[in-house]
Order: sequence, then structure tokens, then C-alpha cells
Amino acid sequence: MTRWQLIIEYDGTTLKGLQRQQHLPTVQSLIEQAIFKFCGETITLQAAGRTDAGVHALAMSVHIDLARSSNSHEIMGALNAYLRGSPVVVLEVIKQNDDFHARFSATKRHYYYHILNRPAPSVLLKNRAWHVAFPLDIALMQRAADDLAGHHDFTSFRASECQAQSPVKTLDQLEIHAQGEHVKIYAAAKSFLHHQVRNMVGTLVEIGKHKRASDSIAEILNAKDRSKAGVTAPAHGLYFLKASYGDRQANHIKQ
Amino acid sequence: MTRWQLIIEYDGTTLKGLQRQQHLPTVQSLIEQAIFKFCGETITLQAAGRTDAGVHALAMSVHIDLARSSNSHEIMGALNAYLRGSPVVVLEVIKQNDDFHARFSATKRHYYYHILNRPAPSVLLKNRAWHVAFPLDIALMQRAADDLAGHHDFTSFRASECQAQSPVKTLDQLEIHAQGEHVKIYAAAKSFLHHQVRNMVGTLVEIGKHKRASDSIAEILNAKDRSKAGVTAPAHGLYFLKASYGDRQANHIKQ
Repeated sequence: MTRWQLIIEYDGTTLKGLQRQQHLPTVQSLIEQAIFKFCGETITLQAAGRTDAGVHALAMSVHIDLARSSNSHEIMGALNAYLRGSPVVVLEVIKQNDDFHARFSATKRHYYYHILNRPAPSVLLKNRAWHVAFPLDIALMQRAADDLAGHHDFTSFRASECQAQSPVKTLDQLEIHAQGEHVKIYAAAKSFLHHQVRNMVGTLVEIGKHKRASDSIAEILNAKDRSKAGVTAPAHGLYFLKASYGDRQANHIKQ
Repeated sequence: MTRWQLIIEYDGTTLKGLQRQQHLPTVQSLIEQAIFKFCGETITLQAAGRTDAGVHALAMSVHIDLARSSNSHEIMGALNAYLRGSPVVVLEVIKQNDDFHARFSATKRHYYYHILNRPAPSVLLKNRAWHVAFPLDIALMQRAADDLAGHHDFTSFRASECQAQSPVKTLDQLEIHAQGEHVKIYAAAKSFLHHQVRNMVGTLVEIGKHKRASDSIAEILNAKDRSKAGVTAPAHGLYFLKASYGDRQANHIKQ
């Protein structure tokens, strides 16, 4: 068996998320089906993150084990041929050692959230960004974001169905970049709770609209109560950017 | 009658271009229908540019004359309500004097062309960028672009069906911005010949692939022969960015 890391992009609009679900289109089922068509092997892929229905990815990392002897070029060509017309594409195939694990070896996950902040909605960014018509106060949002960054109990930003063992996480980055009407919120951490990014974004947007005080984050965190934070921002503005693997990425076996 | 300038965005993917065509979806017919639903007036809009099927616009300028007494806010709200679900949206409505003309008053048209330059295609930029897998030599492309800028007879870059009176145009800007795998080519001129931007981009891409010499532009221009230039780049990578109206834009009647 050889372990292969795949870097994949997907448009989450018509997908029911990453994880396999009976009879529903998901990233996992589309890739596993493409692999079966390629080499007849029934495999279970492992992914760096589980994204919800509607969430996109620019460079999700997954890994698969294949008995068939092959190379990066052949695997990428074959999978993309079988995935043609689907909302998933393979960007890169990297041979890895057996101790590489797309989920457990990841040292950091990177996301960004795209908000379109202007009076009119966009047709070109339909299903690609959250349209917020009310003008956002970016400075207030960044002040609040600075209070969210760091080591905290994020219970107030956790979905009720979250399966993580602990609500305590270290948020390494939460930065807001505004360029004209485009507001992008970058988040990075070793791991996130379910809906954590979307719940943080929803709360920051309420602060940017002056509907909530920018110095209220400590209070929300201390409450450990989901109802104290803001709305869950819609899935279609969220992008899984990439997973980092520390020094390992540089050490993968070159083909 | 009051003259109104509309700034509109559209996703050209499912449109048969800007100009009205019997029974086909175009920007003009969608807006004229929305106006009829709003106030019962049958009007003919005038646009700064005529884009082809598949071409997008971030901020196309058009104007309309309405007998109905109204204001910017009402017109924008009504048109966007009637355009909901269509690939066209109104971003801004500006009251203008009668001597303003979306086409004839325009002093400059701005376009950009988006190329995705990487081995794998993109699902998120499907119908939004031209996928060129072969690595492009951007420096060579910019050298050739510099030779295209200026006052020339652009017959070699003109579609056979072009209706312009003269093939002589002044190309004010042709700049290539590369950021990672995203290559954007910005073009600005008072006016363009039919397919001129797409034919220039197709030629520049052949130069970037080393299929054509970067110092061949003068020869191509002098030949005044369409067959001497490169392919027509696909429509779906082209965006009408905006039209400029000199000092006039600043003088419009504020609502």
C-alpha cells in the first residue's frame, strides 16, 4: 500500500459537506467513487477538516492508501477525468510516508470568511460570499477579534452538535482584511469546534453593525453559553484555505 | 422625462450578451423588462459597451429615460426586486442631466481578463477565468503588451464582423498583474474594436507559452491581417470593469 496526500478544491454549493452520507453528494463520496473507477479499490479517505454543506475549500488536504502501484501524475489525471463536471477537483498529489495522516498530522487549519459589504447583492459572488448591506465598522470588529484570539473555552461559539472532547482551543489568528467592499476574515488554529468560525464571524458582524459592544467578547466567552454570542454566519461565505503539517510538508517523498 | 444612469453587474455565463435579441436572454432585455414591470414604460437602454455572450461586467454603465417621477432609491429597489434570481443586478442609480449619454459621453472603457495559470482547472472559478495549464512567462507577455499599447491600426486584432468605422484606436493601458496562479490583464481605451481585448489576450498567451516571439507585435500590427495574430481568448475570462466619464461623473445631480 502507498499513502497519497491529495490537495483538493471544491465548490460546496451543491455538496452536502465533506463527510460521506448515504446517497448524498459529498466530497468524500465523489473522491472515493473516482478512485474506485480508477483502480477498483474501495477506500476510506481521511481529511484534515470536516466542512459543512455549502462551505468551499481552496486546498483541503486528504489522504488515501492505494494498493495499485502508480505515480502522482497518473493519479491526478485519472481522478480529475472521473471528477470532470463535478464540484471537486484534485490540485496536487503527493506521495507520503505511512506515518502521515491528513487529519492527525495537521498542525494548523486555515480558513477565511468572505463578506461582501455594500448595498446591492452580487450575482458574480452568488453562493461565494455573505452579502451584508449595512456598512461594517472594521476597526471595531478587529478590536473584538483580538479578544477572541488566544487560548479560551469557546463553548459560547460551539454548535450544540459539536463532538469535540474539549471546548478549550487556541485560536492562533483572527484577522480582518478589508479592501473596498470585500471583507475577509482569516482564522487559523490547530483545530476548531463545530461552527466556531461561522459563529465568531456572525458575532463580529453584529459588532461591526454596532448592534453589540466591541468589548463584550470576554463576557461572552466567560458565559460559556451559545445564546450569548451572535448568529451563525451562512456557510457559503466560508472557505477552508489549507492545512499545515509543520516541517513534514517539506519532507514528503518527491516523485 | 428624467435620465438615469444605472451601474450594473452581471454574470455573463447564461446571457447572450448585452444587446437585445429576439427571445434570447440578454442584459438589455432583462433590464428593459424589469423597467416595464416597475412603471409600465417601454424604453430602450443605452450602454457604455456591448459585451458578447459569456462576458461578465463588474460595473457596466447604462442610461434610461423615465417619464415616471421617482428617485434613485426607489428605482434601485424596484429593479432589483424584479431582477431577483436573474444574472443581473443594479449596483447604483444616478440622476443625470439630459446631455449625459452612457455610450457617447464615455471617455474610457476599462476591462480586465482573468487567466488561471496552474496545472489543474478550478471548480470555484468555473466560467469565471480562462484555465491555462502551461506556465506563462509573464515578463515576455508584458514586453509584448507594451508594444500593443498606444495609437495603432488594430486590424489584426479585429473580429471580421466588427462594425467600427476605423480600425485605428488608442490603447491607453495594457498591464499584466500576476499574483501566484492568478494572471489579470488590464486594458483601457476610449473604445475597442470587436473582440480586440480577447484577441490581444490570446496573442499574449501564445507569447507567454513561447509559441510566438515577444518582439513580433510590430510585425503583426503592420500586417493588418487577423490571421497573423493569435487565437481569440474565451469569453468567460473577460470582465467589463467600468466606464469613465471624465469630470462628468463628479457633476451628476446628487439625490
